[in-house]
Amino acid sequence: MQALFFDVFGTLVDWRTSIAHQMAPHTDEPEAFADAWRARYQPGMEEVRAGRRPFVPLDILHHESLGETLRKFGLSVSEPLQWEMTLYWHHLDAWPDVAEGLLRLAPQALLAPHSNGNLRLMVDLARHNAWQWDAILGAEITGHYKPAPESYLKAAALMMLDPAECAMVAAHNGDLAAARALGFKTCFVPRPREHGPGQSVDLAPEDDWDIVASDLVDLADKLSETGL
Amino acid sequence: MQALFFDVFGTLVDWRTSIAHQMAPHTDEPEAFADAWRARYQPGMEEVRAGRRPFVPLDILHHESLGETLRKFGLSVSEPLQWEMTLYWHHLDAWPDVAEGLLRLAPQALLAPHSNGNLRLMVDLARHNAWQWDAILGAEITGHYKPAPESYLKAAALMMLDPAECAMVAAHNGDLAAARALGFKTCFVPRPREHGPGQSVDLAPEDDWDIVASDLVDLADKLSETGL
Repeated sequence: MQALFFDVFGTLVDWRTSIAHQMAPHTDEPEAFADAWRARYQPGMEEVRAGRRPFVPLDILHHESLGETLRKFGLSVSEPLQWEMTLYWHHLDAWPDVAEGLLRLAPQALLAPHSNGNLRLMVDLARHNAWQWDAILGAEITGHYKPAPESYLKAAALMMLDPAECAMVAAHNGDLAAARALGFKTCFVPRPREHGPGQSVDLAPEDDWDIVASDLVDLADKLSETGL
Repeated sequence: MQALFFDVFGTLVDWRTSIAHQMAPHTDEPEAFADAWRARYQPGMEEVRAGRRPFVPLDILHHESLGETLRKFGLSVSEPLQWEMTLYWHHLDAWPDVAEGLLRLAPQALLAPHSNGNLRLMVDLARHNAWQWDAILGAEITGHYKPAPESYLKAAALMMLDPAECAMVAAHNGDLAAARALGFKTCFVPRPREHGPGQSVDLAPEDDWDIVASDLVDLADKLSETGL
């Protein structure tokens, strides 16, 4: 295994707490707002995946779904502020283990985010959280939203690696299942509070993933002990 | 100015010395070999720029031009070794000011290579020389070889910046002229030994570039003093 590809929303960053914190000045229900905004994430991408619209970067989908969410909550917000809110996703805080975990993983493999977020969103998250990547991969670079196979395959090809030389790291069983089906190695890092205290999904591994780690520091330890 | 885009071959790395050093076990004329190999660089890309063939990554062009150069020098080399030689371009040494210069520039702007080299080539050069980038841009990501306008414009768009918010840093007047024509800021860093002791091109600025610096450390100083 020569490269680790990381899911970002949920796996590396606590988007729910960070979005709620930034929305708090604008609504009395910031956590519910974050959940409602995020609930429109997969349907927005599905329009692209299904071929019903050409590829657009995630910022555009976030802006559209923000408008819908604001209407649902009965909030009236100026267009400039709506763009500012869209960029809240560029300023999400990492889970506390991520910075140290990435530093420990860097000597063991090439590291790249492979997220549905656009390139500048990843650049801003890296600066915000002091991450160092070898490259930014992901949907905007590959032209496909995960879990489309082309997304994973093009990411590996850009790194001049076969899928078996790459491992996907994610807190979501579905992301890993899509990667494994193409020959990628798989690392599951559960994030049981991604969706808040009532989370009911992705609490445990749903397949025999190659590595199951409690966080990124544990992943670095397990990887150095066992290889992959 | 919010982002600095860097030319790489010649501007950041001493490709001639590095290629000659790696070719030395295989030929008695390593510098001449490096020059001859590099002489086929622009003609190879021109086939793509002119639309006579679809985009292929620079590694492919390097591999083709290596075969031609080997024949010119009367050298017979196995196909596996030819691929190994192609990857010599992934292991080029930086000019001595680059690592410190990038560290001093990082607090002042987003930093990205915008090179005709492919993504993995840039990833390997960064690891080899301990550089830290915010993102890897360049030909493979934009689908166009410099100085095609689409190359610069798509790079700025991926960073969600207008051209005027970006500066191109290069040792080549032609690269800067192409960027300026699109509205980019320009920084000239001469590398008078890029082509060895007999260099006759790009020894001095050929236009009133926004900044002319003696090396990247000087560029960092000038940028912090004057802004851009």
